[in-house]
Amino acid sequence: MSTPDEAERRAWAYLSRVTEPPCSALESLCDRLGAVDAAAAVVARSVPDGHEAVLDATAARFAIDRSARDLDDADRIGARLVTRDDAEWPGWPLLALSQADTAARGGEPIALWVRGPGRLDEFAAAGIALVGSRAASGYGEQVASTLASGLAVENWAVVSGGAYGIDGVAHRAALASDGPTMAVMACGIDRDYPAGHARLLAEIAGRGLVVSEYPPGTTAAKHRFLTRNRLVAALSNAVVVVEAGRRSGAANTAAWARKLGRSLGAVPGPVTSATSVGCHQMIADDLAVLVTDVRSVIALATPDGAPPSGRGRRRSTDGLTTEALRVHDAIPGRGAVAIEEIAFSAGLDIATVRSALAHMEIDGHVVNADGLWRLS
Amino acid sequence: MSTPDEAERRAWAYLSRVTEPPCSALESLCDRLGAVDAAAAVVARSVPDGHEAVLDATAARFAIDRSARDLDDADRIGARLVTRDDAEWPGWPLLALSQADTAARGGEPIALWVRGPGRLDEFAAAGIALVGSRAASGYGEQVASTLASGLAVENWAVVSGGAYGIDGVAHRAALASDGPTMAVMACGIDRDYPAGHARLLAEIAGRGLVVSEYPPGTTAAKHRFLTRNRLVAALSNAVVVVEAGRRSGAANTAAWARKLGRSLGAVPGPVTSATSVGCHQMIADDLAVLVTDVRSVIALATPDGAPPSGRGRRRSTDGLTTEALRVHDAIPGRGAVAIEEIAFSAGLDIATVRSALAHMEIDGHVVNADGLWRLS
Repeated sequence: MSTPDEAERRAWAYLSRVTEPPCSALESLCDRLGAVDAAAAVVARSVPDGHEAVLDATAARFAIDRSARDLDDADRIGARLVTRDDAEWPGWPLLALSQADTAARGGEPIALWVRGPGRLDEFAAAGIALVGSRAASGYGEQVASTLASGLAVENWAVVSGGAYGIDGVAHRAALASDGPTMAVMACGIDRDYPAGHARLLAEIAGRGLVVSEYPPGTTAAKHRFLTRNRLVAALSNAVVVVEAGRRSGAANTAAWARKLGRSLGAVPGPVTSATSVGCHQMIADDLAVLVTDVRSVIALATPDGAPPSGRGRRRSTDGLTTEALRVHDAIPGRGAVAIEEIAFSAGLDIATVRSALAHMEIDGHVVNADGLWRLS
Repeated sequence: MSTPDEAERRAWAYLSRVTEPPCSALESLCDRLGAVDAAAAVVARSVPDGHEAVLDATAARFAIDRSARDLDDADRIGARLVTRDDAEWPGWPLLALSQADTAARGGEPIALWVRGPGRLDEFAAAGIALVGSRAASGYGEQVASTLASGLAVENWAVVSGGAYGIDGVAHRAALASDGPTMAVMACGIDRDYPAGHARLLAEIAGRGLVVSEYPPGTTAAKHRFLTRNRLVAALSNAVVVVEAGRRSGAANTAAWARKLGRSLGAVPGPVTSATSVGCHQMIADDLAVLVTDVRSVIALATPDGAPPSGRGRRRSTDGLTTEALRVHDAIPGRGAVAIEEIAFSAGLDIATVRSALAHMEIDGHVVNADGLWRLS
């Protein structure tokens, strides 16, 4: 006999495997009945009126209950099942999915299998996705590495798909900078896919997060990459395509970013490079903002100049006086401004602002260029 | 004693030197009185009411009349003075200047000194400016060369400033493709500036056009480059910045393009390249359209899909049947469309369109890609 908590966990694990995600029909059944009763209804093939779609969606798998084994498998590798009942469920970021077109395989995940010491909601709140071609160029890898390092040192979580090419470089650079990074997988969190990234994935799981909506043991499959891409976008404040050829999977993640209202950036490259064609197309078609450096990526993720909610980044402004903080916040995230503008925005007199800026310049918070001030 | 025609030419030549261009005050005096009377009024220091500004503008030089020598100097090198009275005066392209902010050194030129076999109005009607850093990278030079060749073979006139770097590469590639090219100078059309481009400028003058609003012998000066840039933009349908650093003269030409209502494009490059910073900034700030190839540059110059007026380009559609031409014109300059869309736009039935497309594909006018059709 199991405790109520155990029963709940078993029910979620069962539901996580009983359909091929996403499944908005099952999602709304869970909303209505809760996990335990929803699972019981699926098993009994008896659902409330209006939820009949669940029967079709679960017809192939309802009789299989691997929930105990899945939870054991997860336990054994230090992974856990995170559901909407858990404190670390990233409810707000995932909300956009339930509002997105379900015909395009949208919909919230039923639950997420998570491996690693990070808190899922905190990583999502600080998430910026760096995605791109598996067949990246040396240039693309260099840019991905620079961006990931820069984001990581400011404690943004570098989100990607764990693949070869841009993904792997982004994860690695984040780890090398001792920053948070999250790999969202198209297979179970216990599978090393791609095989050549076994060590990288282990390292991400050891210091960041490996996440999947697929139960342990699930193999990667083409349609799962597309489904996974929506989670990469949903769990990030912004998506940046570092390199993409004419037909790149990154274009799919980019489309999800737009559908979910996430800021979309693309890095330009040589027009002679096939792996930048997709990026240039997105920029030329006004689908993506051209980004060139860490600063422009952060500006993309914080359109109002504010850091993301939740754990967010490690504010570089810790230790500033109240006045200095007001001055700091009066300087836009992008571009340089005159001292008069800062004084006006901060509601402080010029002398106070000048003194604060002088101290902040010494501490490296701001930079003076041609008489204008910008954040450093 | 001189003939009326000679008197007119002498008057224009005198007026061309009597102020530092542009001078809208002198321009409106010429509009009112014509060249001969305007010149006489300036010499006599007696202008109609409301035109007093001309006296200040001509105070330093009114007593000097080098018109005969200037015309002789021009003659000797096969150059000519083109004025609004001449058939080849590019009145329409220059009109935008008289409407632009004169405080920013706008205003139409009084006259243009022109050297070369090309017709100025025809070159302007087919003009596309390729501009960029003097300190161009190998990448920038490669792109400038590819674009200029591609434009030249379609008989677009490659307009630039004759400088080192992007300018020179663009002119050279146009010449190598046996296409029209026009160098707009910040000095007299008889000066080799820069000295290292003496042979290039002679070749442009031999097969294209070297143009200046400065009389023969005028030396290049910093303010003249800025003034010249407005003519580069005015005499082109579109301006493309191939490479530009953070502080590039190309940014000034780009600003003129926008002020004069010319389409502005910028070529992206590696974000690691200092000579692409200006291009990326213009694109990110939505000032310039990202262009990557000849096709996108031509699309920029023909926003409505139509070739420019005047001599324009050598239409690749010469020899098409009326129906084929309707089909051709129903395909947008950019992107691919379905046969149904073409039939709808052309007002033809699908069978007719299919047959026309088949012939046009063989002739290389159109390309079928994944069932969609685009111009080749």
